[in-house]
Amino acid sequence: MKNFLSVHDVVDVNVLADKALRLKSAPFLHQSLGKNKTMVLLFLNPSLRTRLSTQKAALNLGMQCIVMNVGQDGWNLEMEDGVIMNGNQAEHIKEAAGVISQYADVIGLRTFAGLTDREKDYAEFVLNQFVKYATVPVVNMESATVHPLQSLADLVTIREFQKIKRPKVVLTWAPHPRALPQAVANSFVEWMQKAEVDLSITNPKGYNLSPEFVKDTTVIHDQMEAFEKADFIYAKNWSSFEDYGKIVEVKENWTVSAAKMAKTNNAYFMHCLPVRRNVVVDDAVIDSERSLVLQQAGNREWAAQAVIKQILEAN
Amino acid sequence: MKNFLSVHDVVDVNVLADKALRLKSAPFLHQSLGKNKTMVLLFLNPSLRTRLSTQKAALNLGMQCIVMNVGQDGWNLEMEDGVIMNGNQAEHIKEAAGVISQYADVIGLRTFAGLTDREKDYAEFVLNQFVKYATVPVVNMESATVHPLQSLADLVTIREFQKIKRPKVVLTWAPHPRALPQAVANSFVEWMQKAEVDLSITNPKGYNLSPEFVKDTTVIHDQMEAFEKADFIYAKNWSSFEDYGKIVEVKENWTVSAAKMAKTNNAYFMHCLPVRRNVVVDDAVIDSERSLVLQQAGNREWAAQAVIKQILEAN
Amino acid sequence: MKNFLSVHDVVDVNVLADKALRLKSAPFLHQSLGKNKTMVLLFLNPSLRTRLSTQKAALNLGMQCIVMNVGQDGWNLEMEDGVIMNGNQAEHIKEAAGVISQYADVIGLRTFAGLTDREKDYAEFVLNQFVKYATVPVVNMESATVHPLQSLADLVTIREFQKIKRPKVVLTWAPHPRALPQAVANSFVEWMQKAEVDLSITNPKGYNLSPEFVKDTTVIHDQMEAFEKADFIYAKNWSSFEDYGKIVEVKENWTVSAAKMAKTNNAYFMHCLPVRRNVVVDDAVIDSERSLVLQQAGNREWAAQAVIKQILEAN
Repeated sequence: MKNFLSVHDVVDVNVLADKALRLKSAPFLHQSLGKNKTMVLLFLNPSLRTRLSTQKAALNLGMQCIVMNVGQDGWNLEMEDGVIMNGNQAEHIKEAAGVISQYADVIGLRTFAGLTDREKDYAEFVLNQFVKYATVPVVNMESATVHPLQSLADLVTIREFQKIKRPKVVLTWAPHPRALPQAVANSFVEWMQKAEVDLSITNPKGYNLSPEFVKDTTVIHDQMEAFEKADFIYAKNWSSFEDYGKIVEVKENWTVSAAKMAKTNNAYFMHCLPVRRNVVVDDAVIDSERSLVLQQAGNREWAAQAVIKQILEAN
Repeated sequence: MKNFLSVHDVVDVNVLADKALRLKSAPFLHQSLGKNKTMVLLFLNPSLRTRLSTQKAALNLGMQCIVMNVGQDGWNLEMEDGVIMNGNQAEHIKEAAGVISQYADVIGLRTFAGLTDREKDYAEFVLNQFVKYATVPVVNMESATVHPLQSLADLVTIREFQKIKRPKVVLTWAPHPRALPQAVANSFVEWMQKAEVDLSITNPKGYNLSPEFVKDTTVIHDQMEAFEKADFIYAKNWSSFEDYGKIVEVKENWTVSAAKMAKTNNAYFMHCLPVRRNVVVDDAVIDSERSLVLQQAGNREWAAQAVIKQILEAN
Repeated sequence: MKNFLSVHDVVDVNVLADKALRLKSAPFLHQSLGKNKTMVLLFLNPSLRTRLSTQKAALNLGMQCIVMNVGQDGWNLEMEDGVIMNGNQAEHIKEAAGVISQYADVIGLRTFAGLTDREKDYAEFVLNQFVKYATVPVVNMESATVHPLQSLADLVTIREFQKIKRPKVVLTWAPHPRALPQAVANSFVEWMQKAEVDLSITNPKGYNLSPEFVKDTTVIHDQMEAFEKADFIYAKNWSSFEDYGKIVEVKENWTVSAAKMAKTNNAYFMHCLPVRRNVVVDDAVIDSERSLVLQQAGNREWAAQAVIKQILEAN
């Protein structure tokens, strides 16, 4: 593994998930691997779970870990090539990536979708510019269209809790007061498509995800119908892909409630966090013993550690 | 010791202070205790001494230490249970505390009083919400009503410098341009009440601390009278408890001056810092050789280390 | 070496540069030197290279490293002695420096020129106030008038790439949309004056650097003339020293272009970064194989490590 940018950098998602689970029971076995190696985590956007779990993962492996909030601690970055830099961006991503690569053995980068230019977001413009100019492996800590460390942790969690060979997993859209990226949803879809699960997506009309991610996965616009016999309900809000980055009005109530969960096969409830309680999901569901949100977050540590370990072993 | 939230978590303040003093002469003796353990420090408010001394203390013990400015690096936290989260708070403290507990062996939390809702502040609402949902020990790095790491360092300093068995210690209110919490003063009072000192408090009318902290400690409204024969003068501003969070006008000059110090038994001057020079205390006093402000700050490291050590030993 | 504040703390710049180069080939040889020692990095201004390379250097030496954005994480500092602190500054630099010294074995400080009061900037008021009150060695991570870690890295880079004994080095002013300090330029001049190079400076009229830095170094106002036969072109913008901190209009185009570089002896191009592309320098120049900007930034790590190592050895 050179970079970890998306599921496409992973040979077998199930094998990687099982490696992560093994680290959970022995986190400190591989500390010589990271000796005198440094992980630099760059945040262009806020982060709690990713920030803490990735630091922890690197430290578990014996690495040093340096964290930087790029725009806040340093300089705003110009992403475009060839421009006359007489505006607010003091540093070009080419220099930033090239310089930081010299201080790091592995770089983690978080950069959210701008949600205004769909083509640029879906070309993963910022992530790819950074990778183009970096000279060391890059770990995607959530980019414009995917969040693979989250998806790997989600897969780990499903593998831990599934009771049947091919559980029914339903990704459901849910409401939110702000316009959010599609990254977590896209990424969950592409990981589940490679996992041993039966995936379907439910969302209101106007909220279909990009066809390039959905592929031949079933999309159902009736949430109640979709929930039937589900073993795992994965809730997440995203803004419209079609009317890009917009909040399109939805008349029905899509909040995940206990009544809706009752339609399922006693399903587990999942969400990547942070979550808007009583907007995305009712307290009764997220506080129930079927909720796996804390377990997912806990597995972020082992997911990150499995990825960084694989990168260190390959480089 | 499970948590360190206030003096009530300490069996004997004098014993703990002496343990801190022993660490000062051999800070690196216990590094195996913290091996593969992680301290996460969460700041909801600014901090200099606490930030640096607590990090240093954890590192001295061989721990890893991860620092996070919660609202700035991550998400604003919703503290109330049962609300519909459609406002500015992106994450509930229940998830935050539960998630971070999985990445940490000990968590430090700083959260100041809001100074608008006295009942909520004095119920230690935020600290208690966090502790309720955390699953690892929590160290109070200053909360709405107390600052026990500071008070422990203050006690250590008094024990280092006292020349008689039961020194006279005077806590004096002093002026300040901003409305400040009562936390340092409250905490100092409750620690001194358990220490081997003769404590009194002096403050203008309108600035009496909460009766639940003052208990039967003498309160004198005449600063000059209070200073007589004092061995230690501990200055601190606080906003009104009665007219909660307000700055009540004071006609007399309560700045600690050399002339006032002359009334004492050649007392040492103490303050927790940061201090407004020539408002709280005159340069002549804080710059004199009787000033212990730097020693107090230095002892923050050993206070934090003694507390974390005790938590690691107990867990 | 007690402090590292400017070139005047260095016995022989060439010897120090060669020490830095030796660390580059064996960065982890001296980890016992920093065992149980802590470096605290204090940033009053933004930083990318200095932040990361100095952390990395301290970690390479086996030290712990604690980073703090002073005004943002802690309190705004009052720099002036004797004032009544009833404004926005909550803490005096005297306490800050004295307190932090107790938690640190070495302190790094970054504090930019204010660019409004030339006398105060050129007296290095803030840096000197901090040093006056600090009780441990201080490393200048760029102050009002100099940036010696940068200059050392620049010298290291020139020594790595020079092909003749006494290369011709030209410092050229270049345009910039904002008013910048003279620190990098001043510092480069005073280091080069002590190095084995033939230095000249070229800048528009109105942009002469302080005579105390320029001394008898040749200043040429015709950029084309200055570039002739140069082996190294070092570009940097600075605001006016004479009309202090102002951007004085320049009619000619001072951007470093390929056409101008063609006048040189196939010179290397240098810049400290961050750089405004196509304002300070054209893409064609900075992207050419004669550009050393990444090498300079890479050498920041060894420059910082050589300086910290020397301080640790002396203290």
